[in-house]
Amino acid sequence: MTHHFPLRIYYEDTDAGGVVYHSNYLNFAERARTEWLREIGIDQSDFREKHGLFFVVRHCEVNYLSPARLDDKLEVISSVEPIGNSRITFVQNIVDFDSKSVRATISVTVVCINHHLKPCRIPNDLREALHSSLSNPK
Amino acid sequence: MTHHFPLRIYYEDTDAGGVVYHSNYLNFAERARTEWLREIGIDQSDFREKHGLFFVVRHCEVNYLSPARLDDKLEVISSVEPIGNSRITFVQNIVDFDSKSVRATISVTVVCINHHLKPCRIPNDLREALHSSLSNPK
Amino acid sequence: MTHHFPLRIYYEDTDAGGVVYHSNYLNFAERARTEWLREIGIDQSDFREKHGLFFVVRHCEVNYLSPARLDDKLEVISSVEPIGNSRITFVQNIVDFDSKSVRATISVTVVCINHHLKPCRIPNDLREALHSSLSNPK
Amino acid sequence: MTHHFPLRIYYEDTDAGGVVYHSNYLNFAERARTEWLREIGIDQSDFREKHGLFFVVRHCEVNYLSPARLDDKLEVISSVEPIGNSRITFVQNIVDFDSKSVRATISVTVVCINHHLKPCRIPNDLREALHSSLSNPK
Repeated sequence: MTHHFPLRIYYEDTDAGGVVYHSNYLNFAERARTEWLREIGIDQSDFREKHGLFFVVRHCEVNYLSPARLDDKLEVISSVEPIGNSRITFVQNIVDFDSKSVRATISVTVVCINHHLKPCRIPNDLREALHSSLSNPK
Repeated sequence: MTHHFPLRIYYEDTDAGGVVYHSNYLNFAERARTEWLREIGIDQSDFREKHGLFFVVRHCEVNYLSPARLDDKLEVISSVEPIGNSRITFVQNIVDFDSKSVRATISVTVVCINHHLKPCRIPNDLREALHSSLSNPK
Repeated sequence: MTHHFPLRIYYEDTDAGGVVYHSNYLNFAERARTEWLREIGIDQSDFREKHGLFFVVRHCEVNYLSPARLDDKLEVISSVEPIGNSRITFVQNIVDFDSKSVRATISVTVVCINHHLKPCRIPNDLREALHSSLSNPK
Repeated sequence: MTHHFPLRIYYEDTDAGGVVYHSNYLNFAERARTEWLREIGIDQSDFREKHGLFFVVRHCEVNYLSPARLDDKLEVISSVEPIGNSRITFVQNIVDFDSKSVRATISVTVVCINHHLKPCRIPNDLREALHSSLSNPK
């Protein structure tokens, strides 16, 4: 029922405190969402061309539990809440790949908009692909 | 009762959607907190050396209301909630500098920790400097 | 004959080595070029709309001389080499604001292209504005 | 004789020009160097602890040939020039994974330093591991 995305921490991700800079966890979460969509057949560039629609982040919340550091191997474990008309809320945990110790918990709500920035109903193919992915996780 | 920090949007801040990448608003908020502390006499590098303490972000929440774009001039308007024993919650709005139209509202809670990552009481000099700043805003 | 752009180093700019992450100096250089153009009346977003032209980086070279650190106040000192048909090479030094000690020397060549990515002659208004700026520095 | 590192372009890597922001190619190159070192048994965090040494970038040069875009799959193809006393120069090409069309060519010289920032002789184990890797590429 969840998607797993591995990642490695490089110097570019860290700061002078010796840990991962706090806003970068949101970047990791976005990489994971992108790869999840790609695995179920949704390339966001194509999606934009085909439907004239794209997703923007409307809200996010992050709890930082313990810091990740240089060379750490992490994993983003993602799931979705019930899909709304135009919104999807992803619940994403950033964990240490080996120990599964949680580094951060993230909630991100994206909204499907058109080129006039108006919220639009999420197309059925994406809706069904996500539901299907949730029932048949890789 | 608030601190104002101006900033400009450069290419590095934007993404292929033509708008500011969502996690960068947290960077802007951190720049504003840093400058606020500096203005009331707290340099974080010195603070770390003097007290052996530093601040880490424990929680953040962002509402994205309308997108900022390349070349926009923005302003981060910051205030703090009542200061806890080891925690400070900053409430920060990212607004368009001219129109004051709100781009994002941000809440960031930082916690004061020592080198063993244990929460510690915020030193009185910082506590008083922030309170004084709130009563006598620039 | 040079343009001066001040900047401050924040946590986002640093890495776990305790210094500014090496690629970020290029970001600082781009901020300085952008502000220089803005000061002589060229807003790149407007330029793109008016002329259908924009600038892309074709080549860069950086020498790192001594590391900048958290809370440092720096300055980007920029000049240009003789302007080519479609190219401009900026020579930019990143120095400590107070000591003027050089942190990095940067050379960046940008090329003016149209929406088909073809190099185009730099419009005369930009050419003259830059020349005029060089003769009458702020 | 070369190391190959695949990567994907996400929104965070792009800018409002619709292409990868120019300084990010240096980040990609650093990821590739890090993974190469890791594959031959050198973890930079351990290296720092064991030898008290680390690598900093002293010089880099980038030629941008054609832009990479959102969702592109790229590959960093890396090799090294003959290793100096304290310096290693990496020659790294960023290519499209499928077409092998070159996006950028990069040269990065790193220098091995101690905690006093003095250049130091590169330890023999790293020297031999890199040479061995070059003769027996994966």
